[in-house]
Amino acid sequence: MQEPIVLPRGFQAAGVAARVKKSGARDMALFYSEVPAAFAGVFTTNQVAAAPVKLCRERLEGGTARAIVANSGNANAATGPAGLDDARRMAALTATALGVPADQVLVCSTGRIGARLPMDKIEAGIRQLPAALAPDGGAAAAEAIMTTDTFMKTHTVRLVVDGRPVIVTGVAKGAGMIEPHMATMFAFLLTDAVVPQQVLQFYLTAIVNQSFNRISVDGDMSTNDTVLCLANGQAGNDPLTPAHPQWSEFYNALAAVALDLAKKIVRDGEGATKFVTVQVRGARDHAEADAAARAVANSLLIKTSWAGSFAIWGRVLDALGYSPARVQEDLVDVDYDDVPAARHGVAAGTPAADLDRVVAQKEFRISIDLHLGPGTATVYTCNCTEEYVRINME
Amino acid sequence: MQEPIVLPRGFQAAGVAARVKKSGARDMALFYSEVPAAFAGVFTTNQVAAAPVKLCRERLEGGTARAIVANSGNANAATGPAGLDDARRMAALTATALGVPADQVLVCSTGRIGARLPMDKIEAGIRQLPAALAPDGGAAAAEAIMTTDTFMKTHTVRLVVDGRPVIVTGVAKGAGMIEPHMATMFAFLLTDAVVPQQVLQFYLTAIVNQSFNRISVDGDMSTNDTVLCLANGQAGNDPLTPAHPQWSEFYNALAAVALDLAKKIVRDGEGATKFVTVQVRGARDHAEADAAARAVANSLLIKTSWAGSFAIWGRVLDALGYSPARVQEDLVDVDYDDVPAARHGVAAGTPAADLDRVVAQKEFRISIDLHLGPGTATVYTCNCTEEYVRINME
Repeated sequence: MQEPIVLPRGFQAAGVAARVKKSGARDMALFYSEVPAAFAGVFTTNQVAAAPVKLCRERLEGGTARAIVANSGNANAATGPAGLDDARRMAALTATALGVPADQVLVCSTGRIGARLPMDKIEAGIRQLPAALAPDGGAAAAEAIMTTDTFMKTHTVRLVVDGRPVIVTGVAKGAGMIEPHMATMFAFLLTDAVVPQQVLQFYLTAIVNQSFNRISVDGDMSTNDTVLCLANGQAGNDPLTPAHPQWSEFYNALAAVALDLAKKIVRDGEGATKFVTVQVRGARDHAEADAAARAVANSLLIKTSWAGSFAIWGRVLDALGYSPARVQEDLVDVDYDDVPAARHGVAAGTPAADLDRVVAQKEFRISIDLHLGPGTATVYTCNCTEEYVRINME
Repeated sequence: MQEPIVLPRGFQAAGVAARVKKSGARDMALFYSEVPAAFAGVFTTNQVAAAPVKLCRERLEGGTARAIVANSGNANAATGPAGLDDARRMAALTATALGVPADQVLVCSTGRIGARLPMDKIEAGIRQLPAALAPDGGAAAAEAIMTTDTFMKTHTVRLVVDGRPVIVTGVAKGAGMIEPHMATMFAFLLTDAVVPQQVLQFYLTAIVNQSFNRISVDGDMSTNDTVLCLANGQAGNDPLTPAHPQWSEFYNALAAVALDLAKKIVRDGEGATKFVTVQVRGARDHAEADAAARAVANSLLIKTSWAGSFAIWGRVLDALGYSPARVQEDLVDVDYDDVPAARHGVAAGTPAADLDRVVAQKEFRISIDLHLGPGTATVYTCNCTEEYVRINME
């Protein structure tokens, strides 16, 4: 069994099987705050956004929420106005069941694109969920949002603010369709800290850019990516803003939970067996560093060579060369962990076997220096195996 | 045995095994024109360009060439100034062996990136090649440039210009690292027509944009992509320019050879078993249509679903949504061959089995209408199978 997930004070959760998934596994989750929580959200930038994403974006204006209802097995994407009605109905039914206003319920869906939600099953699930709510219901809820995930993704950081214990707990799902700027992934970050809504929204965006937007599994950006953060204030600390003496402690806790979950999504990348950190420095600016790192992290040729435990650094040079970043071939240095592969754009003279040994590890780092400026970026990614193809063929 | 390749008048070719490839297969090729030929070239846009690409670009200024010497097994890329010296030496030795000026020899290399050419083997190969030249040596030469190719790629069109027979023959290689704007592919287009060099260069660029730049296997752009066209004038026609009454006949012949070879490269995509045409219309302009078509053609999730014979059109909508092209979800129509999958961004109501049946074919077309403007584009691509991963792991 999973170890229980620690929810912050005033939060409860539940996960049930509503037969949206044919397998009969848990497929509906509810996260509930006993009091209105300040709510922030960051969503997919895909022009084709799922209905629940559209609904959550609307709800952002209100700034508070009481619950998140989520289902796996069906993404409610590419479903048009009828799909948006379904999402609204899902929120309204949950609100009625919980006795809270309808605009205080957020909705998330993940799974197949292009089919209407099976509303009879969803409704039956919503009837079960409130009774199943419990302070230790986090694991059941985390399980219910999994699709091709092979393990549950959660992380908790505890801190003390103004002498009061504060908990930040995150729950995430995601394994495929993972690309920069939000892919089929959810992350729900819950805290009992007191944080004004505008502050939460502003800094959540910054945190997402340094965590979920730094990962890539397959270069496909989804229609449903959603990061929600609920702060219900039950810890009773003074409001956390950048003026608070412990602000950076809280920010770092929230950022640590987000980064941990983001890395877990990469580790669970469909078919992936290796965790790879691609670091670029020396780009003309940060945006170019980012573009260069992503070109390497998303190259199918490079990801498959990692699967074979070959450090074919020439493919890294090739990907840098076609990236939108400015690259001057005879300046480029490439290292695998601390082993030099290329210097000034040509082989550093390290025996191939020494480089391959680095790539044979379950975890390694590729460091690239473009020697053109101050730009730096890091992207976390994984290898691409035959298993990835098998999973997505089916 | 391969059927012989028809070379235009005044051309000869040879292919030998020089042990650059460990397998002992043919790995050096020579294409030779008995008289100076007008020469045009289009090369990779990768900022990391291989040494032979740099050399060919220099030679473009001269405008005429007598020979192309090529090797497989080693790309002579990411090899720095020493690599450029190797490429120059390869040209100079070939020129000496043929008794032509050194600046009349073009060089192409394909294979592993980042290792110096084994010049002893290359030199031994160059010593063998001139003696092996023959008017029917095209097949041996075409074989010698293959890497992961599973079949030889060649196409010939015959026409009559000014009452004189003209031949256009193309030879190409390429199977992986195939992406827009030139990937690890060569194509050598040979003709005995009389064509002024500037005309050849101008129209070769246009032809490449409509053929080799319309294909995608894996979204990786190589350092070595090269299309060379040699016109040696042995047919004795009046010079072919747009003012010539038969210009469009000749242009179409050259374009047909290029498009045929480009499609053969996709058909031989590493591990590919299906040939897919992605057509976009209704984009705001041609550039956006192109971006939208490439997003679909390069989506790993889409390419793997084709491998499983599933028409998961929701993934097509998803890819369109994250492409740089403007997309308005509720306007998008998607068809598989002539079977409607989506109308106005939602399911068209066709049973999934009918769509899957289209995708189960060895060859099918996805037509997308964005209904936003006059932009159109077509990209040719293939599915992604476990075999692709296996090939590139090794």
